[in-house]
Amino acid sequence: MTYSVEWRGDRVRMLDQSKLPQEERYDELTESDDVAAAIRDMRVRGAPAIGVAAAYGVALAALHADRLGPSLRAPHIEMAIATLAQTRPTAVNLFAALERMRAVLRQSSPADLSRALTEEALRIHREEIDASAAISTYGASLIPPNATVLTHCNAGMIATAAHGTALGAIVEAHRQGKVTRVIATETRPLLQGARLTIWELVNAGVPATLITDSMVCHVMQTMHVDCVIVGADRIAANGDVANKIGTCGIAMLARAHHIPFYVAAPTSTVDLSVRTGAGITIEQRSPDEVTSFAGRRVATAGPDVLNPAFDVTPHRCVAAIVTERGIITAPYIRGLKECAGHAGEGGK
Amino acid sequence: MTYSVEWRGDRVRMLDQSKLPQEERYDELTESDDVAAAIRDMRVRGAPAIGVAAAYGVALAALHADRLGPSLRAPHIEMAIATLAQTRPTAVNLFAALERMRAVLRQSSPADLSRALTEEALRIHREEIDASAAISTYGASLIPPNATVLTHCNAGMIATAAHGTALGAIVEAHRQGKVTRVIATETRPLLQGARLTIWELVNAGVPATLITDSMVCHVMQTMHVDCVIVGADRIAANGDVANKIGTCGIAMLARAHHIPFYVAAPTSTVDLSVRTGAGITIEQRSPDEVTSFAGRRVATAGPDVLNPAFDVTPHRCVAAIVTERGIITAPYIRGLKECAGHAGEGGK
Repeated sequence: MTYSVEWRGDRVRMLDQSKLPQEERYDELTESDDVAAAIRDMRVRGAPAIGVAAAYGVALAALHADRLGPSLRAPHIEMAIATLAQTRPTAVNLFAALERMRAVLRQSSPADLSRALTEEALRIHREEIDASAAISTYGASLIPPNATVLTHCNAGMIATAAHGTALGAIVEAHRQGKVTRVIATETRPLLQGARLTIWELVNAGVPATLITDSMVCHVMQTMHVDCVIVGADRIAANGDVANKIGTCGIAMLARAHHIPFYVAAPTSTVDLSVRTGAGITIEQRSPDEVTSFAGRRVATAGPDVLNPAFDVTPHRCVAAIVTERGIITAPYIRGLKECAGHAGEGGK
Repeated sequence: MTYSVEWRGDRVRMLDQSKLPQEERYDELTESDDVAAAIRDMRVRGAPAIGVAAAYGVALAALHADRLGPSLRAPHIEMAIATLAQTRPTAVNLFAALERMRAVLRQSSPADLSRALTEEALRIHREEIDASAAISTYGASLIPPNATVLTHCNAGMIATAAHGTALGAIVEAHRQGKVTRVIATETRPLLQGARLTIWELVNAGVPATLITDSMVCHVMQTMHVDCVIVGADRIAANGDVANKIGTCGIAMLARAHHIPFYVAAPTSTVDLSVRTGAGITIEQRSPDEVTSFAGRRVATAGPDVLNPAFDVTPHRCVAAIVTERGIITAPYIRGLKECAGHAGEGGK
């Protein structure tokens, strides 16, 4: 199985998600700074994939550090970690992965750094792969037979460098013969749904229907939608979920139509240090993503433009959170603490 | 004042809305069939503007009919009416305007047809202008001081060939010093918000903020939105409102956030013959509008694609319907009958 992010001994091989579906291009990166740029420009995106890519970025910095004097190695790697941490503010997997890499950095002798850090990065990736496999199985169990499932953005293989979370569950349920149709929103502004989710679903042989983000309510009104499943970029201790812009609207519309709304994400996405969604930093991206597409300007010059990359779904709209340790339901404050508290300890 | 659709003695001058904002191009049409094509291709769009354009299309057919033998004139014009009626199925103004033209056709002598039909078309247009002026005034009265107003799609001057309905009310309230900010959704798939509403607001000097359709819930959560105002393509007898796809989602999100949701539309948009929104035909347009963005293909080939042009907002989500005869609140079944029943009688 080829993953969207892979370690190749002395380099990172990475699917350029910004080129899909027109071009399936893999880049080979040897510099930590290039990994940081790829995260910032969203050539690699999806909270778990960002965490894995950042860990490999640190491993690249460690390989370079081997050529420096022993006392310069740790500072060089600390610099790389700092640069990687400044790429995107919302997905907590990035910070969780960098925190683990920093802990290994501080525990290792200069002679052992590159080996120890590469191993830790590979371990982070392997854990994501295992987590997404478990999430796919648990998530699939929530999907009823003959199901029409709606998803937003892309929480698939390419977003996780693994089997996928929300999309992993959908593909697994399809493999079990339970999925009749998947409705995927296009996900403006960067169209991850139209470009990436549809591409993954068509590749996996799953019947996929593309809609614009604005069609969700109409689809819920006029077709039978059995459930909504999305991924997450950060989950607060109370179960509030930061995910791609548009998610909270879909969650509230699902609630109004009595359709269960599920979030599928590894425990690495849970941030117990943030009490509620209000404490999650929401990344604001360039207005150009909204006013232009593929280099073509669509809006007249002059207006103010908002471009928050994420929004926060209140926990009361979430029917269940599917993690690799099981399915958590309300009250989330207890379930998440039991699940992710453990994970935090295990990870350090 | 220049309107987006105008009669020029022997031709119709029409702003090509599909070219905005890059190009402000006016076409001069002399054939009824060209008017039908312009409606179908959405070079002219907006329920009131479609009604006006169709009426002028019939007037053009009548001018051509003058060159035919007296007995051939009425059938020629009936053919043109039939072609115009097949352009778009949802906006009722189209059918209401054509019905009025047909009534005049049947009451007039062959020698008098072109004069009588041109006069009726001009009367329909003048009524829309008067209606939108009254709607702007009534609508503005609903907007509080220092207001942030959200709108969807384009219900402005170019959509009405007049002052605008929803956008007319917003521009009037801004003239009265009450509007601090207008939030306009881009309105996928054809981006009428980004291309047309922002263009009109910037031209009118109104502070405008552009968002994607998927940002509505986040904006309602994190900013103070005082009200939502949109237009309508058809209003059923019970107050259910067919309007641009995405409207019902915004209305339900407004309700969940306790934000009043207003519909501004002339009584020509009310269709008392349709009891509820379930009876309104929803136009399905080409998948290409969704799989492409600004002329570029974005989705991979293969998926099924939905492209309903409209959705139906349940009347329970509508705080008021603003017409040229006043502001109607629930129970709509009575208010609309009083208002539009009258209009129907007056119009025939």
